[in-house]
Amino acid sequence: MGRSGVQPSRAGFFLDDLEVGQEAETSRQVTQADIAAFAAVSGDDNPLHLDRAYAETTPFKGPIAHGMLSAAYISAVLGTKLPGPGAVYVTQSLRFRRPVRAGDQVTTRVTVEAVDEAKALVTLKTVVLVNGKTAVDGEAVVTAPRRPTEAS
Amino acid sequence: MGRSGVQPSRAGFFLDDLEVGQEAETSRQVTQADIAAFAAVSGDDNPLHLDRAYAETTPFKGPIAHGMLSAAYISAVLGTKLPGPGAVYVTQSLRFRRPVRAGDQVTTRVTVEAVDEAKALVTLKTVVLVNGKTAVDGEAVVTAPRRPTEAS
Repeated sequence: MGRSGVQPSRAGFFLDDLEVGQEAETSRQVTQADIAAFAAVSGDDNPLHLDRAYAETTPFKGPIAHGMLSAAYISAVLGTKLPGPGAVYVTQSLRFRRPVRAGDQVTTRVTVEAVDEAKALVTLKTVVLVNGKTAVDGEAVVTAPRRPTEAS
Repeated sequence: MGRSGVQPSRAGFFLDDLEVGQEAETSRQVTQADIAAFAAVSGDDNPLHLDRAYAETTPFKGPIAHGMLSAAYISAVLGTKLPGPGAVYVTQSLRFRRPVRAGDQVTTRVTVEAVDEAKALVTLKTVVLVNGKTAVDGEAVVTAPRRPTEAS
C-alpha cells in the first residue's frame, strides 16, 4: 500500500488525501430553466417556484428556486470535487436561510471538518451563498473512497 | 376570519388544517433518464450515478441514484401535497440508509409530527422507501401558509 505508482483515474481525493480545513467550491448562475428542470425531475411544481403571479402574493414577492436545488449543488461539490467521485452520502443537514432566485449567482462551498480514517467517514461544513450571504447551510457526512492498494 | 366562504385556490393545506399524524405520499419509478436529468441540473456527474463500468467496481456493484434525488421527492410531497403549495422549507435532515437504483419504485411519505400555530411551523417525519425498506429518512420543518382572512 502507498502512494507510489497509484494514480487516481479521476479527479477528487482518496480518504488519506483529506485534511481538516480543505475546501472546494463551485459557482453557477441559477436560471428559470434550471428551476423548471428541477421541478420536472422532482415532481415539485409548487407555484412558489413556477407561477410568478402566485409567487408575487407571497412574502418572497416573486418566484424562488427550490431549496433542494441548492442542496443538489452541495451534492455536486461533494460528488465531483471534495471528496469527489466515489463519495457516498451518509447524512446531510440543511437550514434554508434566504431564498435563491433565478438570476442569482450561487457559490456552493464545502469545508472538511473531520476525517474518521477507521470508518472512512468525512464530515464537511456545507454552505450555499448568494452575494456573500448564506442562503443554505448545514453539515454533510460522506464516505470517501480508500486509495487502492498496489496489489489490487 | 374563518373557514366560511374561503376556498383555497389550490390543493394543499393551510396551517389550521394540519394535525399531528396526517400523512401524504407519492410513488414513482426512478429511471436512468431521471438520474441523468438530475445530474444535468445539479452538475453532479459523479460516475457512481452515470458510469456503469465505474459503479460496478464500487460496493454498490452498479449505478445508484443521487441521494439528493430522493430528497427532491421529499421536497415535492411537502410542496405539492402536505402542507402543499406555499409551504417553504426551514430545515431538512437526511440520513441515506440504502441506495436507490434505476428501475426502483420509490414511495416518499411525510407525516406531520408537530404544528406550531404561533410560528406557522410544521415538523414532519420524511421517509423514502424502496420495496418497503427505508432508503432515506429524516425530518423536515416547513412554514405552512395561513388561511386568508375573509376581509382580504
